[in-house]
Amino acid sequence: MIENNELYLQTLGQNAKQASYGLASLTGTQKKALLSAIAASLTAKSQAILAANQKDVAAARENGLSEAMIDRLLLDDARLKGVISDIDNVISLNDPVGTELESQLLDNGLRLSRRRVPLGVIGVIYEARPNVTVDIAVLALKTGNAVILRGGKETLNSNMALSEAIREAITEQGLAADSVQLIKSPDRTLVSGLLKLDQFVDMIVPRGGQNLQRLCAEQATIPVILGGIGICHLYMDKDANIAKSIEVIANAKVQRPTVCNALDTVLIHDSLAETALPQLFSNLSAQGVSFYGCEQTKAIADKLGLAISTATDETYGQEWLSLTLGIKVVADIDTAIGHIRRYSSGHSEGILTDNIHASAHFINQVDSAAVYVNASTRFTDGGQFGLGAEVAVSTQKLHARGPMGLEALTTYKWIGLGEYTVRG
Amino acid sequence: MIENNELYLQTLGQNAKQASYGLASLTGTQKKALLSAIAASLTAKSQAILAANQKDVAAARENGLSEAMIDRLLLDDARLKGVISDIDNVISLNDPVGTELESQLLDNGLRLSRRRVPLGVIGVIYEARPNVTVDIAVLALKTGNAVILRGGKETLNSNMALSEAIREAITEQGLAADSVQLIKSPDRTLVSGLLKLDQFVDMIVPRGGQNLQRLCAEQATIPVILGGIGICHLYMDKDANIAKSIEVIANAKVQRPTVCNALDTVLIHDSLAETALPQLFSNLSAQGVSFYGCEQTKAIADKLGLAISTATDETYGQEWLSLTLGIKVVADIDTAIGHIRRYSSGHSEGILTDNIHASAHFINQVDSAAVYVNASTRFTDGGQFGLGAEVAVSTQKLHARGPMGLEALTTYKWIGLGEYTVRG
Repeated sequence: MIENNELYLQTLGQNAKQASYGLASLTGTQKKALLSAIAASLTAKSQAILAANQKDVAAARENGLSEAMIDRLLLDDARLKGVISDIDNVISLNDPVGTELESQLLDNGLRLSRRRVPLGVIGVIYEARPNVTVDIAVLALKTGNAVILRGGKETLNSNMALSEAIREAITEQGLAADSVQLIKSPDRTLVSGLLKLDQFVDMIVPRGGQNLQRLCAEQATIPVILGGIGICHLYMDKDANIAKSIEVIANAKVQRPTVCNALDTVLIHDSLAETALPQLFSNLSAQGVSFYGCEQTKAIADKLGLAISTATDETYGQEWLSLTLGIKVVADIDTAIGHIRRYSSGHSEGILTDNIHASAHFINQVDSAAVYVNASTRFTDGGQFGLGAEVAVSTQKLHARGPMGLEALTTYKWIGLGEYTVRG
Repeated sequence: MIENNELYLQTLGQNAKQASYGLASLTGTQKKALLSAIAASLTAKSQAILAANQKDVAAARENGLSEAMIDRLLLDDARLKGVISDIDNVISLNDPVGTELESQLLDNGLRLSRRRVPLGVIGVIYEARPNVTVDIAVLALKTGNAVILRGGKETLNSNMALSEAIREAITEQGLAADSVQLIKSPDRTLVSGLLKLDQFVDMIVPRGGQNLQRLCAEQATIPVILGGIGICHLYMDKDANIAKSIEVIANAKVQRPTVCNALDTVLIHDSLAETALPQLFSNLSAQGVSFYGCEQTKAIADKLGLAISTATDETYGQEWLSLTLGIKVVADIDTAIGHIRRYSSGHSEGILTDNIHASAHFINQVDSAAVYVNASTRFTDGGQFGLGAEVAVSTQKLHARGPMGLEALTTYKWIGLGEYTVRG
């Protein structure tokens, strides 16, 4: 990292930390007023924001980005209105900050409590989705945190316009504009630098693919919440209802194949394979799904005149994010669990069975953020889980696991009240 | 890291992960039986353990280690009995694993619950204290976790004897001996390797000084719980009761100066300095305390004929772990809070005051694991806080903050029960 970058990041960090002290003692009412002001400011500056986004879209076309990518970074009037109206939803959420988690009078005379408080400063690294700029800023402020944002370079103009509108609203409310800061250079070394800013930043949330997650795990000296990668499995047990299971599999694979909780691999008990696989092929092929199968699966497909690809170690380890499905016939439940332990990313897995013992065994032995019995993996989602908002989906085990709501943006402090009390 | 080391660590990791699956579904009764068996095995093998420790002590003397260091690594019959009887205490603790943290029927038809489960595999790196080998193994097993231990090289013989006794008891109970594994080589590259074993290890707990903490923050790709460094402050407010405050300060500094929750710096309001500092000097000097003071503090000491050292940026940033105390006169409470923000390690700080507004302001604005009003910093301790056991004292904000009890060795998984339920 060149010297100026280091200086720039130090300044961002110091400003964010300083701003966080002001946010920590805001009341719920003050935070609601702040978020309302942000919504109003974004509405007032809509034209400038859309114009900035148009610049990003034009540059993307010039650089030959795919239409899917351009659609992702596009903000039109309707989408921006949607982003702004989502702020009302966050305003109405319960503010977890200030809750006393426990309180007791210790034998030593100290009144000890544990109080939920903001984390302080959160760093978020994300891809070319300008809505994330607003989402994350609003969720951070709702919980009294300052935030440093690093969005995809393809949306830098959009993010600058959005963050300026947000900062103006913050200033209007008499708070430090640096409560929300955007890294304004696309220089990649700034990401590495942000990951080492442990003096000022309390948590890093990378919202992006495998490479970004790995970069953060390897380079960060700040705690990182890894997540968002879902290699998801459903196991059809020998005691599964075949027709109903296929409905669940189809939902998990087809309803929205491009997201992390979509199904990647079906494991099917040997005794059901001959009966169930033809029905599964027929249902899913009609919906445009293609398959990678084990030898046994391929033999059954062959008999039906269906050509499918050969599953390998590599394909079983893949998050498809498309209408592709891996299939493997297994001898028993423990072989299924073994496969999951080997290939799962710890996101979402399920068993399909009418057998209570198989269900309990699967729940106990599969070590993922969400484990389902007779349900679609598509349920792993902050909205579906009733969290009101979703910061990210964590696939690691510390601090927060699975869909992260507002509480994941807080920590606690211990408070001890004495009467000039000493330890005996 | 040489190739054999990598192979060795991969094997430890795989074995630990495999063992963790067996531990995850043990009942509370089975875990109690396991810990009792460990206590019995350690008792039965006491002679071998003490003999191994004698080898470590002899080597330490030969290598010219300080008597303080040798005392730390020494296990005699009484100490070993103490370590073993502590196991009974852990047996009697409530087992947090299996608790349902919440359970609800979602509108979408899914019955969703959050269940507390073991973390999986924990790596602990610690210094030359053989009692930690037993403490950590027992706490990990109580919560259904496998553990990889890396103790100080000065106690390798002791740790091998202790871990062998533990492993024999585990085998006797029909479980995988590799539930507890010790790294048996003093090679330092194994520490770096352990920190990158993210495929198998879920959490690293470094129990050691600043250098070890920094090494872990920089090199680990596994979540690390930093902690155990306490640069602790007490602020004597303008509305403090001077005599009572000095009692608290004396307790925080003198009662056990070598531990992390001992006091390092007193901040004193300008208006009290002339009256309070002479009393403070007199009380603490009599107990063997020496001082580093700001200019104003030194001037007051001078008038009393007391020679004290000059406090600097560096001395204010120091964890003394000895009968040394920094003193600074401050103009007001916000200057005190500013000093704490700059120099504190986020462990324990307190205000001494009779003023309710100053108390609330200090609690809100000081961002440390434990914040006290009119109480000694020495209370920050798992035993004092009623946690029953202490894994470590965390000074970071994610997952666990302050004294960590058994819950900090667990995570949760989301469990969704459906009736072949799909997402609409």
